[in-house]
Amino acid sequence: MKKIVVFGAGLSATYLIKYLEEKAVTNNWEIWVADRDLDLVNRKCNSNATKKLEIDITNEVEVKELLTDTSLVVSMLPAFLHIKIATTCLELSINLATASYLSKELIQLNDEVKAKGLTFLNECGLDPGIDHLSAMKLMDGIRFSGGEITEFESFTGGLIAPECEDNPWKYKFTWNPRNVILAGSGGAVKFIHNGKYKYVPYHKVFRRTEIVAIDNYGKFEGYANRDSLRYRETYGLENVKTMYRGTFRRPGFSRAWNCFIQLGATDDTYVLEDSENMTHRDFINTFLAYHPTDSVELKLRQYLGIAQDDVDLWEKIESTGIFSNEKVGLKKATPAKILQSILEKKWSLKPEDRDMIVMWHKVVYEKNGQKHHVESSLVCEGENQEYTAMAKTVGLPLAIACKLILNEEIGIKGCILPISPDFYNPILDELENFGIVFKEKEIT
Amino acid sequence: MKKIVVFGAGLSATYLIKYLEEKAVTNNWEIWVADRDLDLVNRKCNSNATKKLEIDITNEVEVKELLTDTSLVVSMLPAFLHIKIATTCLELSINLATASYLSKELIQLNDEVKAKGLTFLNECGLDPGIDHLSAMKLMDGIRFSGGEITEFESFTGGLIAPECEDNPWKYKFTWNPRNVILAGSGGAVKFIHNGKYKYVPYHKVFRRTEIVAIDNYGKFEGYANRDSLRYRETYGLENVKTMYRGTFRRPGFSRAWNCFIQLGATDDTYVLEDSENMTHRDFINTFLAYHPTDSVELKLRQYLGIAQDDVDLWEKIESTGIFSNEKVGLKKATPAKILQSILEKKWSLKPEDRDMIVMWHKVVYEKNGQKHHVESSLVCEGENQEYTAMAKTVGLPLAIACKLILNEEIGIKGCILPISPDFYNPILDELENFGIVFKEKEIT
Repeated sequence: MKKIVVFGAGLSATYLIKYLEEKAVTNNWEIWVADRDLDLVNRKCNSNATKKLEIDITNEVEVKELLTDTSLVVSMLPAFLHIKIATTCLELSINLATASYLSKELIQLNDEVKAKGLTFLNECGLDPGIDHLSAMKLMDGIRFSGGEITEFESFTGGLIAPECEDNPWKYKFTWNPRNVILAGSGGAVKFIHNGKYKYVPYHKVFRRTEIVAIDNYGKFEGYANRDSLRYRETYGLENVKTMYRGTFRRPGFSRAWNCFIQLGATDDTYVLEDSENMTHRDFINTFLAYHPTDSVELKLRQYLGIAQDDVDLWEKIESTGIFSNEKVGLKKATPAKILQSILEKKWSLKPEDRDMIVMWHKVVYEKNGQKHHVESSLVCEGENQEYTAMAKTVGLPLAIACKLILNEEIGIKGCILPISPDFYNPILDELENFGIVFKEKEIT
Repeated sequence: MKKIVVFGAGLSATYLIKYLEEKAVTNNWEIWVADRDLDLVNRKCNSNATKKLEIDITNEVEVKELLTDTSLVVSMLPAFLHIKIATTCLELSINLATASYLSKELIQLNDEVKAKGLTFLNECGLDPGIDHLSAMKLMDGIRFSGGEITEFESFTGGLIAPECEDNPWKYKFTWNPRNVILAGSGGAVKFIHNGKYKYVPYHKVFRRTEIVAIDNYGKFEGYANRDSLRYRETYGLENVKTMYRGTFRRPGFSRAWNCFIQLGATDDTYVLEDSENMTHRDFINTFLAYHPTDSVELKLRQYLGIAQDDVDLWEKIESTGIFSNEKVGLKKATPAKILQSILEKKWSLKPEDRDMIVMWHKVVYEKNGQKHHVESSLVCEGENQEYTAMAKTVGLPLAIACKLILNEEIGIKGCILPISPDFYNPILDELENFGIVFKEKEIT
């Protein structure tokens, strides 16, 4: 019997735990799920065979005791905790799998992990995760048939299903809201377009968007990720002329979001004076010049150059409740924290709300002197507030990868990403059973 | 005989050394001037009695030997070197004077400096320096006569004399160009206006300016400093309703400078790919979207919304040479470094160019139920590229302060700022002999 320990039973673990439990008997697995909140563990586990326990991850003695004779650890904990878990796994010779970014600290363990014949799999969720799997499968296929890739674009969005788009932004928080508030901040965006490096400062990122149409789902708007070139070597795209990776929203989102950026309302680097006693309206007014009589609304329009008849934009702004006299009620808060708390009042999923994941790749390549253009897209809708498409698309690829590692179907050792056929073929095949299906089309 | 050691014989030391040398015999001073560049020392010193030497400031043995029996050290070195000098001065019980900001590290020495009965004077140049002296004299006078200050605004600009304004920006570098390029960056601007705290993000700072007219010199445009509230307690303005401190340029400068900020061309946080082989034009193009046929000029106009007939703005932009095919020629450079090198080609002082310092305070106060408004301004023009108004207004207040310290006319000990009558009365009086004169006027 092989022992699997899952750390963290939060939102993204729902489908992962379900999958592992369902395959446990056939595969002769013993599953342990540990979290600091035992109630959460009990809610998430469906099988009596699963061992459920409360754990303090910082207690090394407890953790080591739990990990005795373990074959694989899956960590769904916040990313900053992974290095500690990885170090323990290395010491005890246990394989590790997470959906988080491969960190610099982890890369430093690579030689030791390899030497011990272990696999530490990273970035095997949705984004990063399914994006790697699907892009590499698509591009390896093209290269295998003699094509040379000249352009690669890729976007992913965590959105809401069309029927649940009941606010003017057509957006709600389906993942960590903080990351949404801070998206694009912290440095210039970098990408390459037609052989030229391009840089976009934070305050322009949401004005340099691209519109993409996906069959049956309408149009989406993509803004650039911080470093589009991050996987250039990893993907074997050293000679690519255009490489652009980004995030999808519904059209109009970015232009409206840019208003918050222009104000300075997404800044997370300083604390506002007396934030506790501010109203939403005071919060917005703190970014606008003093005027003895003009309203906050009028000052905002003037400052940001919002025309009187720009109804689409204004509806979005107004719908957030930023002009209300409701109290913020947060002590020593940064603008970003306050904006998040204001938006959470409007943008949280209702119990019946279903989320939606959209992923899209565009690859342009040359073959036999001819230019080809192929697009591949995935749309996955969630079931409700708990069984979200986000949890499904993060948890299932990781769960399937766990099976591959435990069944020793993965030859590669070290701290790795799921970019080889060993990963993408079986995982993408199996994901289709869960309705996670990419549609490819040639554009002529 | 009292020994004075001056560290640093650069631009800002010109008038300081001249002043000290001229007063040496009367006051029985022995003056030592040390710099890592002996030629510079020889050029700056005019008296045979002055001891001139080359020194490596990091060589503690040499420094300590030089400082034997010294009464006062004046440091005109870069600010980051001051803490080392201060520590040595403290150890050897020597007074210290600089024109640099009082740093946190220095504040930590305060108790020891006091205990030894020493004076470590900071911020006694122009800005900081003359701004403290003149503002405190003005405001103390108002308070002494029973006025209660409700508003305080203060601006300083290092500009060029009207006759030398031979480019559309009416600006040249008269001080560290790097500080000009990075002005306003690194965090939100904060001030208080009519009792409300206001915050402005970097990308809006140069659009939130104020126009000020000064008799005989026309109009100036002020943009806000990072933290206008920095001296709120120091100046005794805890209850002030409006406090705003900033920098002067000629009108139109800020709107044009904002174009560079909007592009991202002032960013100093990352290095551009292949910066060495870029032309000025490539540099600007790297911030603009790819287009197969549109020119860089057209793309820039469109991106920043510069109307075809906005001639004033466009002239400024074009005059910088950013569209030229000249090579940048800097390896691994940040956008800010490249922009600086481009502008230095156009904005450096010619030998006959004269600079100009402009300082302006506005104080509104209430007295006997009546509202009063007083403005105080200083304009000081330089003589040429070497004898600049900047060097004069930085060096002379510090030199006069040195005299006060050596003559034991300053009672206050510790790490201090020149904000008391002990400083502002004698220094401002003596500065008038050098043509540094504030003009006050009541506004009705």
